[in-house]
Formats: sequence, C-alpha cells, structure tokens
Amino acid sequence: MKIAVVAPSCTLKPEAAEAVVAIAAARDDCELVIHPQCFLSDGHFAGPDNARLAALREVMADEGYDAVWFARGGYGSNRIAESAVEDLPAAARAKTYLGYSDSGFLLAAFDKAGLDVAHGPMVQDVVRPGGEAAIHRALDWLVRREPAALEPGLQPGRRAMAFNLTVLSNLLGTSLEPDFDGVELLIEDVAEHEYRIDRTMFHVTGSPAIRRLGSLRMGRMSEIPDNDPVFGNDAESIVRDWCERSGIAFGGRADIGHDAANRVVPFNIRSG
Amino acid sequence: MKIAVVAPSCTLKPEAAEAVVAIAAARDDCELVIHPQCFLSDGHFAGPDNARLAALREVMADEGYDAVWFARGGYGSNRIAESAVEDLPAAARAKTYLGYSDSGFLLAAFDKAGLDVAHGPMVQDVVRPGGEAAIHRALDWLVRREPAALEPGLQPGRRAMAFNLTVLSNLLGTSLEPDFDGVELLIEDVAEHEYRIDRTMFHVTGSPAIRRLGSLRMGRMSEIPDNDPVFGNDAESIVRDWCERSGIAFGGRADIGHDAANRVVPFNIRSG
Repeated sequence: MKIAVVAPSCTLKPEAAEAVVAIAAARDDCELVIHPQCFLSDGHFAGPDNARLAALREVMADEGYDAVWFARGGYGSNRIAESAVEDLPAAARAKTYLGYSDSGFLLAAFDKAGLDVAHGPMVQDVVRPGGEAAIHRALDWLVRREPAALEPGLQPGRRAMAFNLTVLSNLLGTSLEPDFDGVELLIEDVAEHEYRIDRTMFHVTGSPAIRRLGSLRMGRMSEIPDNDPVFGNDAESIVRDWCERSGIAFGGRADIGHDAANRVVPFNIRSG
Repeated sequence: MKIAVVAPSCTLKPEAAEAVVAIAAARDDCELVIHPQCFLSDGHFAGPDNARLAALREVMADEGYDAVWFARGGYGSNRIAESAVEDLPAAARAKTYLGYSDSGFLLAAFDKAGLDVAHGPMVQDVVRPGGEAAIHRALDWLVRREPAALEPGLQPGRRAMAFNLTVLSNLLGTSLEPDFDGVELLIEDVAEHEYRIDRTMFHVTGSPAIRRLGSLRMGRMSEIPDNDPVFGNDAESIVRDWCERSGIAFGGRADIGHDAANRVVPFNIRSG
C-alpha cells in the first residue's frame, strides 16, 4: 500500500516525518511518501493556499496512491476545502483519507463529495507521549482495516462521523456541511475553556441539521484552561445538558481525542 | 426616563454599579434601577439560568421602565435568549434594549422578535480607562437619542446590526438568527487569535444568510494574542479577504469595540 502525506493546515515537523517514515519502513507493509509541501511555511500555514491545494489535488489525482494521510492539524484546511472537491478525478474516489482536528474541514467536504474518509491519528502525533502507538494504529487501519484500530462503540453499517467540536461549529451552515441525518456523531476538543465548550455546544445543538443526528458521543476534552471563576459544570455535564435541551440522544463517551489513544472513526464502516 | 439594569451573562462588579448610579444621579435626566440579580453568582454566571431569565422577564414586562440596559457581557445570555422572547408582554415592546459582546445573543433574538435593540456600552464599561465617557454616551442615547452617540457611518433609514464576531458565529443557524437581508453589519472582537478570527470569518461569510448582507464594516479587534508563528495577515486583511471571497461588500472601518470609545448602533435607526 502506498500512502501520500500532505499538510493542508500547518507545517509538519521534520523530526516527526523522519520518525514516521522509519516506523513505516520497519513495518514493511506500506510505503509512505511525504510530499515536500509538508515542510513549506507561510505565516501560520504550510505554504500559501495555492501550494497546499496543489499538493492535495496532486496526490488525490494520483492513481499510485491508495490513501492520503494528513500530516497534522493546526488551522487552515478550511481555506482550501471547497476547491479540493471541485471536478474530482476518478483516482480521488479510489482512496481513503485520514486525519482529525483542523482536518475535519476536509473530512466534512470529502464525505459530502462521496469520498471515503476517517477521523484518526495523523503523522505529527508521533511526537506525543506514546505517539508511536497512534502511528501504528493509523497504519494498521489504512493498510489492513484492523478492527482493533476502530473506536470500540462503532456499529458496522451505521453511519458515523467524528469532529473536533470547534471545527464542527465553524463548518455548520457553510458549503462544507455534510448530511447528519441519522448519523452517530463523535466529538472531541482540546484547549478550549468550559464557557467556550458550552457556547459551542449551544451553537452546534441549535442547528436543525444537527438535531437530525441519530446520537452523539463525547470523546476527550483535554487541556481545558482554568476558568475564573470556576465554571460550575464539567465538560461531560455541558455536553449532556445541551443534548437534553435539543432532543439529541447522548450515547456516552467515545475513545477519541487529541492524544495517542485516539481511535479511528471511518465515516462509512464497511468491512470494520 | 427610568432604566432597568439586569445581568443576563456574568456578575456585575458592585463598584461598577455604584459608579454608574452616581453618574446617572448627577445627570438628573434618568433614574437607574440596578436589579439585585446583577450581583448573584453561580459558577460562571450572574445566578442560575432561571434567576437570570426571571429578572430579565420581570423588567421587560414592567411598564415602569423605558429601557433595559445589560450590565455586562462575559458569557451566558444565549442560555436564556430563546425563553426571553416567548409570549412577549406588550410592555416589552415599548422599551429599548442596550448592550454588546455576549449580549449580542439577546440583541439578535430581540431584534428577530421585533423589539427595539442597540449595540453599545454597558454598565461595567465604567471601569475601563475613560469609561465614564462610555456611560454618558449610552445614557445620552437612551435618554435623548443624542446623535453624537451614534456610530458615525450609520445612515438613517438603513437597517444596521452590530455584533461581536465570535458571538455572531455562535448564533448562526440557531433559533436566534435574525434576518440579515440588505443589512449593514458591523463586527468587532476581543482577545481572539488571528487564526480564530480567520476561521470565524470563514464560518460567518460561508453562511448563505450572511451573504445577503448589504455590506460589512469592521470595528476594533483588540487584545489579539500573539500567534506562533506570526499569522501573516492582520485582522483587517483577514476581514477584507473573506468579504472578497464571499462577495460581501466591505464598507471600511467602524467605531465600535471592547473599549470606552464604543459607539451606539441601533438596529433600526428612526430619529437618528
């Protein structure tokens, strides 16, 4: 299996790329090609919009690749997501796309365009504590659809989606918004204050499209900054509260998050 | 003129209340009544949702008040905004409502319900440097519709709205969303990173409802935290860029923001 790595958001750290290429080489079941665009830098981004878009479109159109793996999040994939799915070549439909966090903008747009996407670990996760396990999990799933890589609550045949909550909030109502009808939605977030989680849950669950979800599960909300005064509700209470207010079934916790334990959530589980 | 002060978001500082009551007393053209709910505290909020809602509904329904002035922002008015406009008593329609920042959730819901709202200084602004001027500006406008209090670019007879950009993003698609058709929209924000301003502008300008605006002007984006690496675009470039991408006419700068110079923006200018 041949996997292309591009960076539609922020610049990939060279040491992360080296470590992951070494892991893949040692596995001997896949070939990883790190696109040079991953190391471009233009202010906040891994190169200007047109360079990030060109690299992404290039690997999408390349029949030689079985999968496109997003290097890392940060911010910026929303700026090219709409253009990325215009006039899709056939080769783009014959591969899998994997990422999370800011890459959620692409997961949404690609899912809406009928492509095969999954929420899961990215290349730069190798630098997290225990990050090597995240890399193996991602590759196990990309290469051989290893069931142990999957988020354990997923049900075969049931549509699922997973998003960073803040990213999801920022794509609602835009051209990237996918169809949530009957979907099991998994959310996670990182480094957001509880008042922001509460406000974002208000926004997300206030959407008529989101109210057509089948159910919602909560992954990890990590690195929550201190609130002054103490907010008064923890993240799970906040999520439960807004599900109850909006009539969305709360399905419990999910094993996803900004950490090395982040499991894979294919939006369409086929052979899982 | 009799003005009620309630706190639908966070707790009002007693020293701010005292200072503003003294200013109003010295003016001798209005009576300010600070509702005791303003000093309640429940975690992040000025009392639980039901207490904040009850105080707000109480002063809205009271024929003795000519205006309701929101004490301060923070976070939380969205949690009671939908209930605040249910089964409105006639007295609620005979008064003016003034606030900004988190109060934007109420401005939106109240404007949608046909009430008379304006974006402008709040009671706790008295503690800002030069804050006394903001208080006089708010009272000058509430008491005698002083033209000098108004944002100078507004045009009589043209619908305008003003919102904190992040608050606006979080009410789009919810039941609070007002009608933006042909409106001149003024935005401002505080303490948001440039990447967040960019992401929020993507979200807001990606809304088909927002694309029906007449034009958009940018107030102050203050206290922007450092971005690492340097983002690459300043706030005005970001706002201009998303207006251009989305086909919204950019009308230049606006004299609003999280500061003592914040001018008043009535959503419906009548006697301007």
